[in-house]
Amino acid sequence: MCRIAAYAGPAIPLENIVVRPVHSLLEQSQHATEAKLAVNGDGFGISWYDDRGALGLYRDVLPAWADDNLINLCRMVRSPLFIAHIRASTVGETTRVNCHPFAYGRWSFCHNGQIPHFRVIRRRLMAALPEHLFEQMRGTTDSEMIFLTLLANGLEADPEHALALTLDQIGTAGDEGPIKLTCVFSDGETLYGFRHASTGPAPTLYVSEVLEHGGRAVASEPLCGMAQRWTAVPPDTLCKVTPEGFELCPLTAARAA
Amino acid sequence: MCRIAAYAGPAIPLENIVVRPVHSLLEQSQHATEAKLAVNGDGFGISWYDDRGALGLYRDVLPAWADDNLINLCRMVRSPLFIAHIRASTVGETTRVNCHPFAYGRWSFCHNGQIPHFRVIRRRLMAALPEHLFEQMRGTTDSEMIFLTLLANGLEADPEHALALTLDQIGTAGDEGPIKLTCVFSDGETLYGFRHASTGPAPTLYVSEVLEHGGRAVASEPLCGMAQRWTAVPPDTLCKVTPEGFELCPLTAARAA
Amino acid sequence: MCRIAAYAGPAIPLENIVVRPVHSLLEQSQHATEAKLAVNGDGFGISWYDDRGALGLYRDVLPAWADDNLINLCRMVRSPLFIAHIRASTVGETTRVNCHPFAYGRWSFCHNGQIPHFRVIRRRLMAALPEHLFEQMRGTTDSEMIFLTLLANGLEADPEHALALTLDQIGTAGDEGPIKLTCVFSDGETLYGFRHASTGPAPTLYVSEVLEHGGRAVASEPLCGMAQRWTAVPPDTLCKVTPEGFELCPLTAARAA
Amino acid sequence: MCRIAAYAGPAIPLENIVVRPVHSLLEQSQHATEAKLAVNGDGFGISWYDDRGALGLYRDVLPAWADDNLINLCRMVRSPLFIAHIRASTVGETTRVNCHPFAYGRWSFCHNGQIPHFRVIRRRLMAALPEHLFEQMRGTTDSEMIFLTLLANGLEADPEHALALTLDQIGTAGDEGPIKLTCVFSDGETLYGFRHASTGPAPTLYVSEVLEHGGRAVASEPLCGMAQRWTAVPPDTLCKVTPEGFELCPLTAARAA
Repeated sequence: MCRIAAYAGPAIPLENIVVRPVHSLLEQSQHATEAKLAVNGDGFGISWYDDRGALGLYRDVLPAWADDNLINLCRMVRSPLFIAHIRASTVGETTRVNCHPFAYGRWSFCHNGQIPHFRVIRRRLMAALPEHLFEQMRGTTDSEMIFLTLLANGLEADPEHALALTLDQIGTAGDEGPIKLTCVFSDGETLYGFRHASTGPAPTLYVSEVLEHGGRAVASEPLCGMAQRWTAVPPDTLCKVTPEGFELCPLTAARAA
Repeated sequence: MCRIAAYAGPAIPLENIVVRPVHSLLEQSQHATEAKLAVNGDGFGISWYDDRGALGLYRDVLPAWADDNLINLCRMVRSPLFIAHIRASTVGETTRVNCHPFAYGRWSFCHNGQIPHFRVIRRRLMAALPEHLFEQMRGTTDSEMIFLTLLANGLEADPEHALALTLDQIGTAGDEGPIKLTCVFSDGETLYGFRHASTGPAPTLYVSEVLEHGGRAVASEPLCGMAQRWTAVPPDTLCKVTPEGFELCPLTAARAA
Repeated sequence: MCRIAAYAGPAIPLENIVVRPVHSLLEQSQHATEAKLAVNGDGFGISWYDDRGALGLYRDVLPAWADDNLINLCRMVRSPLFIAHIRASTVGETTRVNCHPFAYGRWSFCHNGQIPHFRVIRRRLMAALPEHLFEQMRGTTDSEMIFLTLLANGLEADPEHALALTLDQIGTAGDEGPIKLTCVFSDGETLYGFRHASTGPAPTLYVSEVLEHGGRAVASEPLCGMAQRWTAVPPDTLCKVTPEGFELCPLTAARAA
Repeated sequence: MCRIAAYAGPAIPLENIVVRPVHSLLEQSQHATEAKLAVNGDGFGISWYDDRGALGLYRDVLPAWADDNLINLCRMVRSPLFIAHIRASTVGETTRVNCHPFAYGRWSFCHNGQIPHFRVIRRRLMAALPEHLFEQMRGTTDSEMIFLTLLANGLEADPEHALALTLDQIGTAGDEGPIKLTCVFSDGETLYGFRHASTGPAPTLYVSEVLEHGGRAVASEPLCGMAQRWTAVPPDTLCKVTPEGFELCPLTAARAA
């Protein structure tokens, strides 16, 4: 179980979401309250877009709370759209290439959850990747594979359809436990959030009301101390956040199609 | 608050103490039960002696639970005397030079606790070090300074006297809170454990009965799952463990002297 | 171009090969003389076997010359058979999982060279792996893939045949440049060395005469300062070193078969 | 011998100096031409100022050429004044706290060279530091000590005088070899460069003509491939670069005073 915090709106320092809130992502790395594991010390990462949509990526294997570079980066860099992630590993070694977010072209993606039967389907998913995406594979996580599969399924053209197709491809885990897939991703213009569990509750995800200086946050846990109220993203519903507002799009239609 | 586990006796694989017990040091790095902080993810270290008394040192800044090298080392290396430490930092950055144990000559030392007024006395302690010990200083922790001060105070000749002198030199912290100094150290022949708090309880330290295949462990928390019972080391008492047994020597006499 | 140094014989400290010789592996990491790149700073690793044949593995991404842990390990650990490798990366990020040696069961393997058309054949090689080997894949290097392919081709039963089959599977690189495959590997009993280039010279590999205290070394470059003379391993010839001596077995027979 | 590259002028991406030039700092990390050591793989760092003068710091122990985070940062971050440094260690372990630049308040500082008798004078220099600077000491390098001593000597009010006083305090190394002190530092408004050797040549330092899009670079070696010509900074002369131009101020006057 990992923790995610993201933002879309007027450019702000990354630290406004990642470091400063009372229950910031950094704080959650040591004291998560809605996760199975209270510690998320197996690496972290941030993807951020600048004013021209260029994508930056910073990932490391240290616990987030111990990394001065991260603190400096979050204080200095201002961005209109960014996604931060702290990792509590389930599959895959603690190496930079297994840290989220994953990036491809203008897309970045991070994931909280797991595919319990990943060992069974990994090979099939890998074989289904087109050459240019297969070559992007750097690590061994189910999360990276979900991202590449989403891209293979047309993420860039139709995110809802790509999610529906990808869930179908993942199939059911049977006795190995429920598939849990809460993810946050972006193309630099829209910030997407999504929650799914094959059975039982999906990992939590919330979208904030408009923050004090504008913009909205999407996070695994409300970044308390920020006065705004938070809306839980319903399961199987794609949440689309833009500077203009947010929209909740149930996936049912796409899956039925 | 850090966690310590050490051993003296017939040579055994390090993993018998560090990895395998149900409540091993590795397990405590994520789920300590008698510490203020449940997480000890700010680095770790092991000092070990071989059959000839040569001293090895392995320290790194990753959380112990994420380090394959550590697992391998603990499985492969057999030693008759070793000290392992996991760190939850209070003073000093997360760098290798701030990880315990510290080593000098045939001595290695690790510490759990803190000197709350360290900033006030650091300079004085540093000035009191003889040249050859001053040159050994690599990091910025109170722990390393305590070790160097113990050496300056004759640790090699008379550990009890050195402890008494060092506590006197540290003095009292006043309003900044109690001095806490639980430490485990060795010259490769005897394993020493010591607990002290200027007021309130000192960080815990236990010595085991003879383990299944001989030898004794000294640890911050009993390595449960090993059937043996554990004795709490009383405060201000130097515990000396050798292959022959252990001895508890109250420090009072030394301090009065 | 990486550098390799290995040893088989009476148990010695790893440092006798890795650190102490005038032109030791550590020295070569900064001043290789027979390699294209003089610097090998993209990680290192050592696999070593103990008296009972158990296999240890230590790999890290720091330049070897900067790692105190490595120096300590090499000083403390004695082994009758070990393989050390320093990396100058051509394919694959600098992460621990891309550092050599790679290990599987009782086998460990390291590689110097490259498959220039790896991107073209990676997918085919991956598809040819049986499930239990596919699951071992952790990184993205051609070297790890060669090792897994050797295992799939029966390395454990017949190394020469496995090498011949694997070279056939790799095929020819065409315009992308020559395939270079110098590798050193072991099952804990025999130390194997092998050199191959599809065209032009293969990366160098030498086997020493019996060293001062017994045993032989296999290395990319003679560890000068050790008085013994060194024999160049001929291309396409499997060199088998045991405590009893060494044997050179041309691969032609196996490939013809 | 380390390598330095810095810039002052209109805000540009860090990569324009650090990564893109044919003989960029990154390139120099593997193939320095005017340094004793061709490899600078013992860590790196960048300090940069934003439009409001806020100071960011990024340092790590990996070789610069292996760090994707660095590449990303240099591509994404634009700054009107920054200093980059790659390290080939002479004194002090390879830890982040020993990597340059060092920062204090709005000042950042990096150094190329060494004080050969540092062990002899370290204690004296340390004792001369006022409390607030003593507390800033994090590592064990002569470079950090020079920076703190410069601050103690009034760097913020009069850099030339502070340099003169500091050189006097360092004194002469006698038989241990020449003192070499080439440094680049800034308060976020002016970029300073300085070269000194007690005997023999000081490590090189050049200031560029106005670059294509404005601004000037200061570097250990000309970043060739940029068409501009470079001026060697004369020894014992403080070079002051601002957006308006650069000035060379011989230190003699200050030292005589």
